[in-house]
Amino acid sequence: MKLSEIGEFGFIERFKPLFTSLVKCSQVGIGDDCAVISSNDAEDWLVTTDLLMEDIHFIRNAITPDQLGYKSLAVNLSDIAAMGGTPVGSFLSIAIPPAVDVEYLDSFMKGYHELSAKYNTPLLGGDTTRSIKHIAINVCVLGKSLKGMARRRNMAKPGDAVCVTGNLGDSAGGLHILLNNIPDSDSGRFLLQRHLKPEPKLNEGSFLSGNPDVHAMIDISDGIASDLKHILTSSGVAAQINIDWLPLSEQLKNIGGQQGWNTIEMALGGGEDYELLFTVSQGILADIQKEFLVKFNTPVIHIGNIIEGTPKIHWLKDAIEVEMPIEGFNHFRI
Amino acid sequence: MKLSEIGEFGFIERFKPLFTSLVKCSQVGIGDDCAVISSNDAEDWLVTTDLLMEDIHFIRNAITPDQLGYKSLAVNLSDIAAMGGTPVGSFLSIAIPPAVDVEYLDSFMKGYHELSAKYNTPLLGGDTTRSIKHIAINVCVLGKSLKGMARRRNMAKPGDAVCVTGNLGDSAGGLHILLNNIPDSDSGRFLLQRHLKPEPKLNEGSFLSGNPDVHAMIDISDGIASDLKHILTSSGVAAQINIDWLPLSEQLKNIGGQQGWNTIEMALGGGEDYELLFTVSQGILADIQKEFLVKFNTPVIHIGNIIEGTPKIHWLKDAIEVEMPIEGFNHFRI
Repeated sequence: MKLSEIGEFGFIERFKPLFTSLVKCSQVGIGDDCAVISSNDAEDWLVTTDLLMEDIHFIRNAITPDQLGYKSLAVNLSDIAAMGGTPVGSFLSIAIPPAVDVEYLDSFMKGYHELSAKYNTPLLGGDTTRSIKHIAINVCVLGKSLKGMARRRNMAKPGDAVCVTGNLGDSAGGLHILLNNIPDSDSGRFLLQRHLKPEPKLNEGSFLSGNPDVHAMIDISDGIASDLKHILTSSGVAAQINIDWLPLSEQLKNIGGQQGWNTIEMALGGGEDYELLFTVSQGILADIQKEFLVKFNTPVIHIGNIIEGTPKIHWLKDAIEVEMPIEGFNHFRI
Repeated sequence: MKLSEIGEFGFIERFKPLFTSLVKCSQVGIGDDCAVISSNDAEDWLVTTDLLMEDIHFIRNAITPDQLGYKSLAVNLSDIAAMGGTPVGSFLSIAIPPAVDVEYLDSFMKGYHELSAKYNTPLLGGDTTRSIKHIAINVCVLGKSLKGMARRRNMAKPGDAVCVTGNLGDSAGGLHILLNNIPDSDSGRFLLQRHLKPEPKLNEGSFLSGNPDVHAMIDISDGIASDLKHILTSSGVAAQINIDWLPLSEQLKNIGGQQGWNTIEMALGGGEDYELLFTVSQGILADIQKEFLVKFNTPVIHIGNIIEGTPKIHWLKDAIEVEMPIEGFNHFRI
């Protein structure tokens, strides 16, 4: 059987039950942004890992080595942010083909260090080795959160507002620019930056997890159509999302208009935005929005609501339910 | 500059100083088998990670998928063993080319689970993704040890005996058999098994670290010529190793004799034996050997002694110093 037939999550479901009996009651294993492991009476440890493969996740001459170093760590710190945690240290494994020279790696490590220093996250170990042709980069990040305070995917409640911390689809726009050689412009550079050098929302995640009325949280790595689906499935609820409420940047609308892009589809399914998607009690939504704006100078955007029902996203346009041809991202479908 | 000119450790030395200021005083970072991170008053966390690349670390049709799954975890558990720790959980990232089918992966996970169950180590998370051509496997293991009891490389003292927990060179013999299509035999199958399905010495490491007179410890992944050198450099001492005392299995001597192998060179530089190499006060050596034999039914083999001096291995043959043309393994020299 081909892996493309069952996808990443189908594959995980095949072996997950094997390991269930080994997981201790003080541990949360497979199925969230991070594993959660009890450390002491005050804290839990969080662990997350991501593997980036050349020509799958990045193209060597389309991202500078320092951007690649920065992004390799950023996508992992974003998982710590999604749990409302704080990073403790990182572990970098890198496989290097003969054509990559030391200067390239120096620049990679410079970018990796830039983000490490920004969030006070030491590189504590790793592995370096050869590869035949492609660069492979695996980063594992250890983080921590206050005991029992890690925000998981299974905490959404009917009546919650569904919110995001920033614009959607910018990263997909940046990728389109890279792949289609679209002429240089201010808007284009903005979208490229969002794709090539994403910022993990650690401070935002930490602030949100400090509020007990913020329930489920996830980072947007595959696009909200897929990422919100994880929350719904884990929580056993449905959602209504208002397509008209989705936040799109002026830059995306600008270039998207010129190039005839389906920007809504990019916002829903493009992925790699690394904004936070969370659910929060309606009663405190206005307060959270006000506080968040003061603290971070960016808005919390309300895009829909959690409702009772079997896990499914109901897309609304002008308050009428519409079909959207967006599926969850399948990493194994080419 | 080519990476082959400076090697893995030369590369690490280029970026390590960048991160030194970020490492907390309660953390041990780059430069041991595992990072050590303070967890609570009673325990430290250990973290290790290893990246295995197809056609560098393994050849797809020369190892069965269940052996590959077992070995991917084993090489990481061996690092936990080398610190005298206990594994808590593992994280598996795997990149899968289109030619690999679901049945192959099921078998891989079966082997991975077999070893997980043996040492009660749940798989707590990971990442699965596509790759263009080669399988890439990264495993990260979280372990723990009693506070301050993790055995590090920098603890060897002049006068210590240098010991190993088992035969050396078997894995290199198994690799030779694979690469040279040597006819099937009982001895050959034994060496192949040692290469393809190594056993992490977790119980042995835990027993040894319970004795305060056992000082430095490391697992033998690159061969003792290289691995002992790490202990000497970290501890600022030298060693005399008696080549005549190196333990070689009957099976290695048997096939090595038939094939004209340099079995001493394989024992010193072949690597992947995953036995433990440690230093221990001479005064308790006999007791440790006796207890170890009773407990594990295998001997502790005394191969030499730590002496004062600049970090260097002095090779002795019939008590006379000889030159050995063995260097540290350079992962980037083809």
